[in-house]
Amino acid sequence: MTDDGRNLLVIGAPEHDAYAYHLSGFMAPDDVICLRIDGETHLAVSSLEYGRAKKAAPVDELLSYEELEIPKLARELKSGSKAYARAIRNLLERLGAPDPTLHVPPTMAVVYADALRESGLTLVPDGKLFDGLRRAKSPEEVDHVEKAQRAVEETCEHAVGILRDAEVGEDGVLLWRGEALTSETLRSEINVELLRRNCLGDGTIAAGGSQAADPHERGSGPLKAGEAIILDIFPMDLSSRYYADMTRTFVKGEPGAELRKMYEAVLESQEAALAMIGPGVDGKDVHEKVSEILHDAGYKTQVHDREEGKPLTEGFFHGTGHGVGLEIHEAPRLGVTGQKLIPGDIVSVEPGLYYPEVGGVRIEDLVLVTEDGSRNLTRFPKQFVV
Amino acid sequence: MTDDGRNLLVIGAPEHDAYAYHLSGFMAPDDVICLRIDGETHLAVSSLEYGRAKKAAPVDELLSYEELEIPKLARELKSGSKAYARAIRNLLERLGAPDPTLHVPPTMAVVYADALRESGLTLVPDGKLFDGLRRAKSPEEVDHVEKAQRAVEETCEHAVGILRDAEVGEDGVLLWRGEALTSETLRSEINVELLRRNCLGDGTIAAGGSQAADPHERGSGPLKAGEAIILDIFPMDLSSRYYADMTRTFVKGEPGAELRKMYEAVLESQEAALAMIGPGVDGKDVHEKVSEILHDAGYKTQVHDREEGKPLTEGFFHGTGHGVGLEIHEAPRLGVTGQKLIPGDIVSVEPGLYYPEVGGVRIEDLVLVTEDGSRNLTRFPKQFVV
Repeated sequence: MTDDGRNLLVIGAPEHDAYAYHLSGFMAPDDVICLRIDGETHLAVSSLEYGRAKKAAPVDELLSYEELEIPKLARELKSGSKAYARAIRNLLERLGAPDPTLHVPPTMAVVYADALRESGLTLVPDGKLFDGLRRAKSPEEVDHVEKAQRAVEETCEHAVGILRDAEVGEDGVLLWRGEALTSETLRSEINVELLRRNCLGDGTIAAGGSQAADPHERGSGPLKAGEAIILDIFPMDLSSRYYADMTRTFVKGEPGAELRKMYEAVLESQEAALAMIGPGVDGKDVHEKVSEILHDAGYKTQVHDREEGKPLTEGFFHGTGHGVGLEIHEAPRLGVTGQKLIPGDIVSVEPGLYYPEVGGVRIEDLVLVTEDGSRNLTRFPKQFVV
Repeated sequence: MTDDGRNLLVIGAPEHDAYAYHLSGFMAPDDVICLRIDGETHLAVSSLEYGRAKKAAPVDELLSYEELEIPKLARELKSGSKAYARAIRNLLERLGAPDPTLHVPPTMAVVYADALRESGLTLVPDGKLFDGLRRAKSPEEVDHVEKAQRAVEETCEHAVGILRDAEVGEDGVLLWRGEALTSETLRSEINVELLRRNCLGDGTIAAGGSQAADPHERGSGPLKAGEAIILDIFPMDLSSRYYADMTRTFVKGEPGAELRKMYEAVLESQEAALAMIGPGVDGKDVHEKVSEILHDAGYKTQVHDREEGKPLTEGFFHGTGHGVGLEIHEAPRLGVTGQKLIPGDIVSVEPGLYYPEVGGVRIEDLVLVTEDGSRNLTRFPKQFVV
């Protein structure tokens, strides 16, 4: 997807705003202004960023906030956002496009949007367009994600090694290096291994037992034999700022029959979903297929067991997958409301089942949609018992 | 500062939106709705977060998106943001406040703001109010920042140890463990030490020579004796999500006379600024004092040497400091446009001088504004030569 000649405006800090980084190609911790008019990209940065931007920003025109008189306007108008708006109007006049319709990301800060509209500009918040620009990954972007994915897998191998090395102590508590192996220890080991590979793991999940039955619980306390342990590893590569994402579920020792049955059902549903991924396929259909398999295996799903007005808190109650790139959660979604997949989409495929009494199981791969099907970017095996 | 009975609305993902985390007290990776009406806080979360929120969210009322019928509304209205707006209207009616003026953060996403206004609600984007709510840190928040600050200092001590241990090789290149000591190695050592203390260092600066003369340059390649090396360490504590921030400048071996003079000037200006910090003091005045000292010492500053329309790229061309809390850069600012300090503000004080031919020097402490003055949260010594 391209911008089709539409005029775009992003104001944001590229470090926190993937739209700003994607459009400008320039990384900075503070707000920049990025304007694409008639296919040319104009980037304005503060003097603090100017030197670096001159070397690094792949844009058609680089401007400083001083050239745009933003500091002076801010003093006169006593408002930073109004100064930005005035400066952008002035720039548009200079570019011979005094009154364009500007497509902006859905996340543009309301103070900027208000100031720009007050200045007479027409803004179209356009999530579809901006998300679309980021969906079809270039070969270089795919490389970035795969590099992060390799770090995830080497790190997961390290974590599995710890689970293998662990001994089983009293009450089934895992012992490692003479102490109880906790979620905290395992997560810390994972995050340090990620960092050795220049990847930043914020939010890493290492949760066992009933904790694993809460999909966003990161885990705390001792891990035990016989219970399912979910490792969900989704770091950002510090160089490229791209993410990877993988989940595996392990059990040390013998899983109970119920847990094993859950694992088999999730694995079957994931394999069916992986087989479906390809261009033109609707994420909704993938999610429904997964839900059907889990439902047929006797589990609750949001598709089959929704009670209007009540959250489903056991079974399968999240989406099947999401896009991964400059954000860990981005378009497209594979869920109740899906989107048609296009070549270049990178999506997670991650069904799960959650029953507090039994535990949680989730298996997640990262998949690239290609011209004629898909390529699984994940090489890590799926082995339940370690 | 309190909300003074004003009604507040935040929609955002607490992990990325400090306003959402601060108002709800609940951490989540996806958007939540947090409404404060007549002093009571109502939090709505998706079913994925509901279980955790029930245990952890310190709010007056917890609601699920299902109770608010958001999934159903999204299907009917074919729009997530319109569904949120409708659900919020319905909730307001139930709360007996059908038509309040809602103060929202300046960063509210324009799609939410548009949908809410279309639904007839009156929104007031109010940075002053929301930033104000986060400014005066509670004792617990101060503890969080100090804990992160201790991690910064232990980590900096580790880095200084490496500089001390390093030998000087050919062309002055520092050698450590038999290899050239690079910015990358030093930064990696710092980030690993931070992580051992459960702190996440994204953006850590370890830059030497002319690179250190670019304040946002993170540094790359071999470090050398005789050149200034800036270490700027500002991690987030993974448990509390609060930041700390400290910068020190070091030289291994003998600094040249010009560099030493720059260091002395920066140190003098920082000490003067630290002595000024207290309640009622305007950040602008602190910044002007710093600029005056640096100007008198013969250096360029943005206050004295601004050429309208041209970025200043050497001398002192950034602010003197910024608030630190749930964000690394937050209110108040100590700069060209300042704000009056209040008890509970935690601010950085970090003058710097940057001359590509000589190098860069920056010295930064973190200071708590108290009822009757200030308390420096930084214990790390200021020693130039290692």
